[in-house]
Amino acid sequence: MKSSIGSKVRLSVFGESHGTAIGCLLEGLPSGVKIDMDAVLNQMARRAPGKDKTATARKESDTPEIISGIVDGVTTGAPLAIIIKNSDIRSHNYDNLKDNPRPSHSDFAAAMKYCGNNDIRGGGHFSGRLTAGIVAAGAICRQILKEEGITVGGHISAIGNVTDTPFDPVNVNAGTLENLSSALFALNNPKNEEPMRNEIEQARCEGDSVGGSVELAAVGLPVGLGDPMFEGVENVVANILYGVPAVKAVAFGAGFGYASMKGSQANDQMYYTEEGEVRCYTNNCGGITGGITNGMPLLVSVAVKPTPSISKEQKTVNLKTGENSTLQIEGRHDPCIVPRALPVLEAALCIALLDLLAKGDRV
Amino acid sequence: MKSSIGSKVRLSVFGESHGTAIGCLLEGLPSGVKIDMDAVLNQMARRAPGKDKTATARKESDTPEIISGIVDGVTTGAPLAIIIKNSDIRSHNYDNLKDNPRPSHSDFAAAMKYCGNNDIRGGGHFSGRLTAGIVAAGAICRQILKEEGITVGGHISAIGNVTDTPFDPVNVNAGTLENLSSALFALNNPKNEEPMRNEIEQARCEGDSVGGSVELAAVGLPVGLGDPMFEGVENVVANILYGVPAVKAVAFGAGFGYASMKGSQANDQMYYTEEGEVRCYTNNCGGITGGITNGMPLLVSVAVKPTPSISKEQKTVNLKTGENSTLQIEGRHDPCIVPRALPVLEAALCIALLDLLAKGDRV
Amino acid sequence: MKSSIGSKVRLSVFGESHGTAIGCLLEGLPSGVKIDMDAVLNQMARRAPGKDKTATARKESDTPEIISGIVDGVTTGAPLAIIIKNSDIRSHNYDNLKDNPRPSHSDFAAAMKYCGNNDIRGGGHFSGRLTAGIVAAGAICRQILKEEGITVGGHISAIGNVTDTPFDPVNVNAGTLENLSSALFALNNPKNEEPMRNEIEQARCEGDSVGGSVELAAVGLPVGLGDPMFEGVENVVANILYGVPAVKAVAFGAGFGYASMKGSQANDQMYYTEEGEVRCYTNNCGGITGGITNGMPLLVSVAVKPTPSISKEQKTVNLKTGENSTLQIEGRHDPCIVPRALPVLEAALCIALLDLLAKGDRV
Amino acid sequence: MKSSIGSKVRLSVFGESHGTAIGCLLEGLPSGVKIDMDAVLNQMARRAPGKDKTATARKESDTPEIISGIVDGVTTGAPLAIIIKNSDIRSHNYDNLKDNPRPSHSDFAAAMKYCGNNDIRGGGHFSGRLTAGIVAAGAICRQILKEEGITVGGHISAIGNVTDTPFDPVNVNAGTLENLSSALFALNNPKNEEPMRNEIEQARCEGDSVGGSVELAAVGLPVGLGDPMFEGVENVVANILYGVPAVKAVAFGAGFGYASMKGSQANDQMYYTEEGEVRCYTNNCGGITGGITNGMPLLVSVAVKPTPSISKEQKTVNLKTGENSTLQIEGRHDPCIVPRALPVLEAALCIALLDLLAKGDRV
Repeated sequence: MKSSIGSKVRLSVFGESHGTAIGCLLEGLPSGVKIDMDAVLNQMARRAPGKDKTATARKESDTPEIISGIVDGVTTGAPLAIIIKNSDIRSHNYDNLKDNPRPSHSDFAAAMKYCGNNDIRGGGHFSGRLTAGIVAAGAICRQILKEEGITVGGHISAIGNVTDTPFDPVNVNAGTLENLSSALFALNNPKNEEPMRNEIEQARCEGDSVGGSVELAAVGLPVGLGDPMFEGVENVVANILYGVPAVKAVAFGAGFGYASMKGSQANDQMYYTEEGEVRCYTNNCGGITGGITNGMPLLVSVAVKPTPSISKEQKTVNLKTGENSTLQIEGRHDPCIVPRALPVLEAALCIALLDLLAKGDRV
Repeated sequence: MKSSIGSKVRLSVFGESHGTAIGCLLEGLPSGVKIDMDAVLNQMARRAPGKDKTATARKESDTPEIISGIVDGVTTGAPLAIIIKNSDIRSHNYDNLKDNPRPSHSDFAAAMKYCGNNDIRGGGHFSGRLTAGIVAAGAICRQILKEEGITVGGHISAIGNVTDTPFDPVNVNAGTLENLSSALFALNNPKNEEPMRNEIEQARCEGDSVGGSVELAAVGLPVGLGDPMFEGVENVVANILYGVPAVKAVAFGAGFGYASMKGSQANDQMYYTEEGEVRCYTNNCGGITGGITNGMPLLVSVAVKPTPSISKEQKTVNLKTGENSTLQIEGRHDPCIVPRALPVLEAALCIALLDLLAKGDRV
Repeated sequence: MKSSIGSKVRLSVFGESHGTAIGCLLEGLPSGVKIDMDAVLNQMARRAPGKDKTATARKESDTPEIISGIVDGVTTGAPLAIIIKNSDIRSHNYDNLKDNPRPSHSDFAAAMKYCGNNDIRGGGHFSGRLTAGIVAAGAICRQILKEEGITVGGHISAIGNVTDTPFDPVNVNAGTLENLSSALFALNNPKNEEPMRNEIEQARCEGDSVGGSVELAAVGLPVGLGDPMFEGVENVVANILYGVPAVKAVAFGAGFGYASMKGSQANDQMYYTEEGEVRCYTNNCGGITGGITNGMPLLVSVAVKPTPSISKEQKTVNLKTGENSTLQIEGRHDPCIVPRALPVLEAALCIALLDLLAKGDRV
Repeated sequence: MKSSIGSKVRLSVFGESHGTAIGCLLEGLPSGVKIDMDAVLNQMARRAPGKDKTATARKESDTPEIISGIVDGVTTGAPLAIIIKNSDIRSHNYDNLKDNPRPSHSDFAAAMKYCGNNDIRGGGHFSGRLTAGIVAAGAICRQILKEEGITVGGHISAIGNVTDTPFDPVNVNAGTLENLSSALFALNNPKNEEPMRNEIEQARCEGDSVGGSVELAAVGLPVGLGDPMFEGVENVVANILYGVPAVKAVAFGAGFGYASMKGSQANDQMYYTEEGEVRCYTNNCGGITGGITNGMPLLVSVAVKPTPSISKEQKTVNLKTGENSTLQIEGRHDPCIVPRALPVLEAALCIALLDLLAKGDRV
């Protein structure tokens, strides 16, 4: 198993949910960039559990320790390793799961693949906890992107049956993205917070969970990132986003909406701005044509499945006895991980974009 | 620019639409597999233009020549290179486009990135013609998968406003997939062909084009392909599918439908079959949990945008004069590329699955 | 900068000599292998300074902490991260070097490349200390190789003008390699220890250093590892060995000796053993033909340059003043790193061989 | 099997000696570079057989056809594919070899690895003929390097017992390298040609072959190419050079000579030139410290083993009967491949250096 991604900028994630520590390695960073650790901690806080009533009551010690690659707050260019110690672990909750894999969890597939040697405690390497390292790494990449004039942000576009106002594809604003990217419950229309929280609360009360989606955007990207086929922006971005547990769909711009469109309606016609820049009247392509950025805002939507850990009784199999069985998952679990997934997905997007930028073949 | 993908099995695509030839290189194949060239030609025929009235009237010489890696019809294990000569080229149609980039084509982004050095004739390396190499390579991979008991197929799930019956997620059948994968206009419900063709014909008459979507499936996959994070099945499959021009969305199983689901509804509960195999009552996860195949059918949906080449007048910019301009694209263009995209997407899926299988870390 | 290597089994090294900690990440290990930590510590001890009078008097806390990838002493298949804390650091010794780069050190090239942002303390990421992580990772790979019947070892083939008896190319013995691979000063002929130590002691007394070479061997390798061109055994092994600081030459089998040989003398003619195995009368090719193992012992020689840190006055430049200057390096430095480099090179060879083996394309 | 190498600039080689054609794919080139095809043909001619009496009498049609990536003589940035058709093939000479593997050839190892499916005719994918593609690709990279002020060349440093004058490590001259890189029998001292040819002629008369070595150099490299560990200049260069058949040793600068040196003698002390450039009094490190170029000439030596194909009777095994046997190789074979290997090795060095340069992380 390899948990690495990237070409010029490369992220490797390691650790298990209930092991000593989790962390990541970030290679290929430029040297000489001053890193603001407070900004890193702020992003960590967005993902951390226990910050928001929608999330699990567990408390994780999410303080990232940078053990290499930075001296006096400035990147050296050497590989940057981040360690986040684990604590507040109650592993006894997981004993029953080794034999009775949780539906829609990785338990069964992992048990088959690793012959039962994989770490089952808290999901082991498959745990959403591993995404804390992605957030830390992404927060560093975000700062480097910012120096290049690039801003990344996102909002919760849906939880259950409640949807938020989508981004205006041609008018996504750096300031707006900046604000969203520091929010704990990021929405374009704050009025949607209460009904969304109600969806979550209702799921919690029922011992259930609920899914959702997020919409991410990036502005300030130069024209010319990405390549026409397998190293296009869509490929690189989708590849890393699918590395975030629970992601089951990734779409750019109009996405599946393209299916019912006519070309005349779908095509993003072009014009010169007064400043002489080429822009489009619409942005169905989400800022990417032929795999390459075209200067319009990058727009990508992601579906997040409901947490599979629910307390309702479920049918499963007993791998020990070889018989059908039932399972009631105990322990503390998020009824909805969408708010916490958002900063992870933003972080993943930041890492992908820095990789594309660092490949440096714009010219 | 690199147009390569894959880890153990690696595909590299080369060529330009109006160059001498296009082709691809396929590395990492096992030795000793007998390849049926007729089956390769059949897949090529599905993608070839001029086979179907929905497609362009251009005729392409889509006969792939395998110049290495096969002796006496059997793979040697050495890199397999495929060449497909170009012919029937009318390059004079493209002269105007160098200065007036076509909306929603790669023209503008490519011109900026490559400083005008990219081959503009027929779209050059960005042309859909390049996918002929993917189909040839995929047809070879498909045969190797078949020897392992794996079958891949798909259907047109939508064109414009007409949709086809989706696969039954828990009961996708190898025989059905086999049949679909030899059809020129593959549908689960043949009654949808006429209304879909009407959508296309209407677009053609209006000088317009229309988008659509396809649904792909694979059965017979062993449990345990893929890895939990960045080398998961979703990552690998999405990565290659986004390499096919016009793809703007990729979703697994319930995809964006997950957003409005409860966990109790979304979770795929498990049971033992009479043969002692673990199966799920539902298959919202599309055969993948934690990035790893779980033995259920693999299901992936893909949105295909409408051909951006339409004959209606469109607004664009003149890169030479620096002024706004208009463009009317001449030449022969598909009003809908979905039927021809389907075999390409199937081929890409075959290549991705063989790569996952060849990595051989199931144990 | 990326400090990673490998395809199926991938090693990533991180840390700086005087940072919090150094370490490495080892991805792609099989699950279910029991790891003997004492064996890991024994290899660490061979590389550790202060164990032998030829080495520096510094004491490093070389206790590797495995923070992921192993549960109850058994590999889980997940990425294995190793941390080794730094201690006994006297950074004030290095202040002068920022302006006056040490001859034949990386100081000058690194200062230019990283604009002075690289960590200069103790050599930072360029320090030989980083090889401790390689030794730990290699010790784990060595155990997995052993389960496959593969044994790796080596000896000091030269220090200064004293040379050791080379391996008998056709009769390298697993037991001998086993013994050598636990020795602190590994020699085929123990009588060479005293004269070699004299070379080192003389260099030390003169405030100088001395170079050397090592010869590595591996037995028990299956026929068929490696590929004919760029993924051959020589490529993979040389690639990782050159990652060990101070290595300036890598040669397989007869190496540069081939230059003056006739084909009739160089060719390794073949015969069947009584057990029906194909063997060669000679082993000039060092166990590799066409990039692929042929079942004979793998033999590779490596030159290690003298430690560039010597206390003699040397001419250098002052990057601050832009004038020529002189430098006298203070601090504790090994007069000869060859004995300590040997376990690092063995470890690197183990990692490379496991990667080749894990690629699993023998068939 | 994958026959690809490189990170930003990537070379993939394909074809078999007696197949339809051989060739290569070169990805990652900058767009907009004018390519001089005559210069490519000149390099091809240096490698081509039949040009020189030391070489085989076979005539190969070594005319490379560039089928993609170049329009009107200028690179487009798209993958560049080169095809070289095969001709003058006498495959019947090889029939006997399938059962009786040639000593020190890849025959035995390949037969085991590929279960006899590999192409045995003329060595198949293992043939030295495949290097024609490397020369063509290298000739293109060489031109791009030249635009950056970088010159690559080399000379035959030894054939049998005759050696040539080595490069003066601190005074390698671009003009000299230029001249050497167009010579058919490149030597620093032309007086060595006759005795070297005598070595070859003697080997030929005896039905034998003879080995040798070459020394390569590159000047004009910027300070700062390469990385400290596994992506250092030595790693990247050795990796590609070992991809050239018959290479068994690669050494940088003083190479194995370092083993008997003192640090005070080995260290390359530094000074400022009148132009304010930092240079070294000596160049034992061959232009690389800490894996990174230091501005001094790059120097690398390579050992080339004698052609294993000799007409003398040799002992081998019969894989069909399982008994010992003897073999007398017929057909036309080079008694010494060193003169023809030199342009291949230069080409490989050019490709490696362009890859390092293109990674663009000098800053």
